[in-house]
Amino acid sequence: MKITCSQSELLKGVNIVSKAVPTRTTMAILECILIDASGSEIKLTANDMEIGIETVIEGKIDEKGIIAIDAKFLGDVIRKCPDSDVVIECDEKYQTTITCETIQVNITGKPGEDFSNIPVIPRNEPVILSQFTLRELVRQTTFTITELNANNKVMTGELFEITGDTLKAVALEPVRISIRNIKLKESYPDKKVIVPGKTLNEISKILTGGTEDMVEIFFTENHIIFEFDQTTVVSRLIDGEFFAINHMFSSDYETKLRVNKKKLLEAIDRSTLFITKDSEKKPFVMEIEENTLELRVSSSYGRIKERIDVAKDGKNLKISFNPKLFIDALRVIDDEEVSLYMVNHRSPCFIKDENESYIYVILPVNLQDE
Amino acid sequence: MKITCSQSELLKGVNIVSKAVPTRTTMAILECILIDASGSEIKLTANDMEIGIETVIEGKIDEKGIIAIDAKFLGDVIRKCPDSDVVIECDEKYQTTITCETIQVNITGKPGEDFSNIPVIPRNEPVILSQFTLRELVRQTTFTITELNANNKVMTGELFEITGDTLKAVALEPVRISIRNIKLKESYPDKKVIVPGKTLNEISKILTGGTEDMVEIFFTENHIIFEFDQTTVVSRLIDGEFFAINHMFSSDYETKLRVNKKKLLEAIDRSTLFITKDSEKKPFVMEIEENTLELRVSSSYGRIKERIDVAKDGKNLKISFNPKLFIDALRVIDDEEVSLYMVNHRSPCFIKDENESYIYVILPVNLQDE
Repeated sequence: MKITCSQSELLKGVNIVSKAVPTRTTMAILECILIDASGSEIKLTANDMEIGIETVIEGKIDEKGIIAIDAKFLGDVIRKCPDSDVVIECDEKYQTTITCETIQVNITGKPGEDFSNIPVIPRNEPVILSQFTLRELVRQTTFTITELNANNKVMTGELFEITGDTLKAVALEPVRISIRNIKLKESYPDKKVIVPGKTLNEISKILTGGTEDMVEIFFTENHIIFEFDQTTVVSRLIDGEFFAINHMFSSDYETKLRVNKKKLLEAIDRSTLFITKDSEKKPFVMEIEENTLELRVSSSYGRIKERIDVAKDGKNLKISFNPKLFIDALRVIDDEEVSLYMVNHRSPCFIKDENESYIYVILPVNLQDE
Repeated sequence: MKITCSQSELLKGVNIVSKAVPTRTTMAILECILIDASGSEIKLTANDMEIGIETVIEGKIDEKGIIAIDAKFLGDVIRKCPDSDVVIECDEKYQTTITCETIQVNITGKPGEDFSNIPVIPRNEPVILSQFTLRELVRQTTFTITELNANNKVMTGELFEITGDTLKAVALEPVRISIRNIKLKESYPDKKVIVPGKTLNEISKILTGGTEDMVEIFFTENHIIFEFDQTTVVSRLIDGEFFAINHMFSSDYETKLRVNKKKLLEAIDRSTLFITKDSEKKPFVMEIEENTLELRVSSSYGRIKERIDVAKDGKNLKISFNPKLFIDALRVIDDEEVSLYMVNHRSPCFIKDENESYIYVILPVNLQDE
């Protein structure tokens, strides 16, 4: 095999597929990127058996062939080369030479045949949305996913539910739920799948396009496939039933607040001053009286107290929360003002907008400590 | 005590003196910043017994007094406050209230009398140089100081030697020496002291001024004092004799190279690709033949080889170095071209300019491995 590509094009491709290279594995071949120049184009592939990514890069095939090269090593070499033409050449013993200007690097590759290729999956009609929208959706929901929760595999994923022209994404932890409803440009047949959180996070790192650049999403029995630009990402779906959450939602509330988002976020962030590592779950108290919201935290270190003006509907209320849950939700809401709906000090608080394009549900903490 | 300052002024002051707050100590009072408003100005002080820093901040003294407050806590509170007026007030039981807009924080301070004040030291005539020059001097030399080398206290410091109108700074490790010679605006009496590397590094973080902003340096028997803007830094000197290095320098060489600094630095940096954690001391080989410099590294991972054009004077030479030592030195040299002077493959390489404003001495590695 012998190919010639520009350093920048090669680096772009390596950076994209590297997202599917496992950080720890006992199978050395999984740590490789496959360079496939056996056909008419140069294709890079990585595959950790959960997610596979392949991308086509521009370049000249001087001699057809295929080779697998350690991903970290290939990335480091290309990154440190000047932006000039890079030639990658290998012989039948997998001895690989990378040449750029007066630089010459020799390493030993692995046979391309040993590589686990991405499964070839028949595709139906895709669901289409913009790269910007998908990236935003991921940012606004996946922080709720407990990736390490191996006890319940379903909780490491996010529900993608398509009903007509709406894509609903739901991520859930025992103490909170994050929901986004996205309007699509057209209607699609109903779908309901659980996508691994890891897949969504990796995808969002390589989606660099804007609102004009599209992603095509294909759903199959066991896989979800994202196609955009010159790149294809294939991920396994999570098997199982997602949690039934509809019974939690009603339009009843006893207290509704409208408050400036930035002010509320900054005040809650200040309340974390008193949260040290010893007592990470120290809650803050919200006391709502007429048109004032008072936030308070006290600990062995001292006390902080702050007042914010709000527009209130309904009853006064004293309720307590883990500040991190509020901070996470408020950070990904782009509105200038937010509405909080509460029933009592034991029931969850709903942060949502009028047409429910977002709903963040946060459980309160028992007040008895104060 | 009751004082009112702007948040930005208070934060600036806290950030400056915090550089003298020890990260680990058994004496809680050393973790504090002293706010001294007992006189006509507001002075912040921190002191870890090696370095002491005090700075005067602008503000209004509503009631004279003095209080010590945990440095990390004070910094965190002020940092998270909006840029508005901050009032700090304490009662005779050291109960302290910090108020900013509608935010109110209560903490317990410590009696100012318990604080270890910075020693009052009689000053002679200062040596004067610009903040920019001192900051650059620190950047260009202190990387050579082994701060953790407790076996030899002298090696944790840097020689400051004043002879006439020249300040010579020397930092030394067993494998390298870094020297800078600075021309001063006027001549001073001879001086020779060893300044702790830590002091220099902390100072350079708070020297924000340019070539027009001056630092006055006072030398006493046991201390060095830096005065600039509204800030005074007092540091102990290191007791002992600095290493005699003059015998190492001669103007003889067998091989002299002139080479583009950026190209050499990038090539050596690339050679580190083959240096993994297992073999951190893997050297690179420089082979000088006529007007070509070839750099090579080989390891169990593979080989890298690269040619650079140079202007050579004298003999061909094959010599081997630890790449990190070269990279450190080349990074802090601002010249476009550098000159390397070498005698043979066992003798140190000198990187220096014509008038010796800088001299970097690097020991080679034994070649037998290749």
